[in-house]
Amino acid sequence: MNLFIKNIGQLVTVAANGTRVKRGAQMRELHIHTNASLLIRDGLIAGIGAADDSPPEEMEVLDAAGRTVLPGFVDPHTHTVFAGSRENEFAMRAEGKSYQQIAEAGGGILSTMRAVREATKRDLYRSAERRLNEMLRGGTTTVEIKSGYGLSPEAEMKMLEVIAELRRDHYSTIVGTFLGAHTVPPEYAGDRQGYVDRICDYMMPHVAERKLATFVDVFCETGYFDLKQTEQIILEAKRHGLVPKLHADQLTAMGATELGAKHGAISVDHLEQMTPAGIDALRNSETIATVLPGCSLFLNHPYAPARAVIDAGIPLAIATDFNPGSQMCYSMQMMLTLACTQMRMTPEEAVTAATLNAAAALGMSGAVGSIEPGKQADVVVYDVSDYRTIPYHYGVNHVWKIVKNGVLLDF
Amino acid sequence: MNLFIKNIGQLVTVAANGTRVKRGAQMRELHIHTNASLLIRDGLIAGIGAADDSPPEEMEVLDAAGRTVLPGFVDPHTHTVFAGSRENEFAMRAEGKSYQQIAEAGGGILSTMRAVREATKRDLYRSAERRLNEMLRGGTTTVEIKSGYGLSPEAEMKMLEVIAELRRDHYSTIVGTFLGAHTVPPEYAGDRQGYVDRICDYMMPHVAERKLATFVDVFCETGYFDLKQTEQIILEAKRHGLVPKLHADQLTAMGATELGAKHGAISVDHLEQMTPAGIDALRNSETIATVLPGCSLFLNHPYAPARAVIDAGIPLAIATDFNPGSQMCYSMQMMLTLACTQMRMTPEEAVTAATLNAAAALGMSGAVGSIEPGKQADVVVYDVSDYRTIPYHYGVNHVWKIVKNGVLLDF
Repeated sequence: MNLFIKNIGQLVTVAANGTRVKRGAQMRELHIHTNASLLIRDGLIAGIGAADDSPPEEMEVLDAAGRTVLPGFVDPHTHTVFAGSRENEFAMRAEGKSYQQIAEAGGGILSTMRAVREATKRDLYRSAERRLNEMLRGGTTTVEIKSGYGLSPEAEMKMLEVIAELRRDHYSTIVGTFLGAHTVPPEYAGDRQGYVDRICDYMMPHVAERKLATFVDVFCETGYFDLKQTEQIILEAKRHGLVPKLHADQLTAMGATELGAKHGAISVDHLEQMTPAGIDALRNSETIATVLPGCSLFLNHPYAPARAVIDAGIPLAIATDFNPGSQMCYSMQMMLTLACTQMRMTPEEAVTAATLNAAAALGMSGAVGSIEPGKQADVVVYDVSDYRTIPYHYGVNHVWKIVKNGVLLDF
Repeated sequence: MNLFIKNIGQLVTVAANGTRVKRGAQMRELHIHTNASLLIRDGLIAGIGAADDSPPEEMEVLDAAGRTVLPGFVDPHTHTVFAGSRENEFAMRAEGKSYQQIAEAGGGILSTMRAVREATKRDLYRSAERRLNEMLRGGTTTVEIKSGYGLSPEAEMKMLEVIAELRRDHYSTIVGTFLGAHTVPPEYAGDRQGYVDRICDYMMPHVAERKLATFVDVFCETGYFDLKQTEQIILEAKRHGLVPKLHADQLTAMGATELGAKHGAISVDHLEQMTPAGIDALRNSETIATVLPGCSLFLNHPYAPARAVIDAGIPLAIATDFNPGSQMCYSMQMMLTLACTQMRMTPEEAVTAATLNAAAALGMSGAVGSIEPGKQADVVVYDVSDYRTIPYHYGVNHVWKIVKNGVLLDF
């Protein structure tokens, strides 16, 4: 829990200086110390010094030898707990098959639902643990994980219990989100409203009472959950002390972003089809815009208008959206590359979006997302001499060492 | 040099059955053996058997434990030997700076030229060796490397000598290409034709006499080398027994593909701006179309029309185009993902394009690019149970073990 890192070439702090989130030109301010050292005590950042400082007391020393240190990435939107695999669907999409054809061949989200319902808690835990290990090896130290592949009270609780166990046991900081409203399960085919009522009247009280989630999410989308149903779920969530966040504007712009802003959703995520009205709504809110560039790459869909969002002064975060159907990638380093090459974000904006702003999208920017005294010592040493190399040189893992809560991990 | 690999879940041979290259529907035929074993003798593929066969004699055994085996990737278009780094330019491009603004700030290809001219042979060798090691760890066992950052007789020879030394020393199979006509160096500013004459009359004879390259390449592009100059270089190359290949249709369609087809270039590479006339020209030739999807991602340029090329019956290969200015990625696994998601190629087509057809684009499909008796035992074991997972699950290195010329590498 005590560690001294010396000879840091670039210490990229992303210092917030007391602000919850960065917006506009602030997103370019990374507050970099060159030739620095970092003092970690009791698992927390204790101070920043010169490269050749000595630790103030007897403690473990890591020589970074000129390498680059960043705060651990925060991935604020993932579906890391799942069973099964969907290569087949990936291949069908490459062949030009439609969503309908894929669903008829047994693919789509319901195939993952079937696999999750059949899986034991132990299997779900083990597979998610392996993924979280790989995410950690890639520099991600905080991960949001959603339910939403169970779609029955039992299976949703099973997923959330697995997330809670991972939260308790895993090195990573884990945050749980209840996404009962991911799609309508077969049991409620033709009775969408019945399923929404089931979520609100039966599932949500259980989630809240057992403290199985921090957030409640809804796939607010044409053909899935409409504005009225989404609002019903949001209001019920707030009544239970759960914080709303939304899947918004992924396939169609039907007012989800505006609804999220109106009700103070902590974030609206996706935004590929976002309109000027959506940007206006966010500009007058505290809601964070979370973009998911990997999903656009994977599905060959348009990218969210990140440039316009940042230029409008709206705080923007990046997440992987890691999931087996539409985004089979858990690398935040890869997301930085996509942000810079596909969304015209600068490396500085991308780093801020993947650390401090991503932490804010989970309500955790007081604890993680930057390297500042008092915060969790979640810091990652990259084998590069310039932080811009991380998005620039892609398709490879640049991580050299990972420090989580002050512990130098040995894996 | 002798090795027996047992318990292979999927042995993807990409068998050519005597053909030089695959085209059309053949590109989807991977010839997969499930539950197989592989016998390697004297560095060559000796035979394929059942999963639980025993080796016919005392030899080293590798238990693949159900994993997937593919031929080593062949990367037929790279600029792996270079000095310096161009993160700064990457950041400027993200900020919307133009090529002209980047060049005025000291960026662009001439910045790499300056760094290469200043670098020692030893430095060029060491940095390229590290990159080749990483490429090998990512499953690439054969690599083409171009000169073209020296742009003076001395510096071009220095690059080609480094490539020749790597070819002699490195585990990977290396093929050298003379790309003197990459751009016009400052010494010939305003005298493009003078530089072309220098290439033909002075540099090329040295390259040929010292056997420093197999191929000669030209950046045939508006504002670089025109059709007449390109033809002059092609004809001179052929006169010296060197095989032509071209950078074609990257930024503009000015007839480079047609020129390459006419003169029997072994491949025309890039093709982002390829026209129906280019497709027609290739259809009536033996020239291979090599696409570089990473370059399109990195520069946010259009992708080559791979689907149309394959559907026209033209053999298509994939390469990384790894270079510090426009494609800082050496992962062929990543290229498969881009091929499937951005160019509508199936996983099978992508694998064929990155193995057998890529070997053909280097004139080497008799020796590498598939797992067939008599070929070099360049085989890679991936920690996946289905080859389609390699493009599907991206941003991560799936390689478990690498066997090069029958040697199980321990790195």
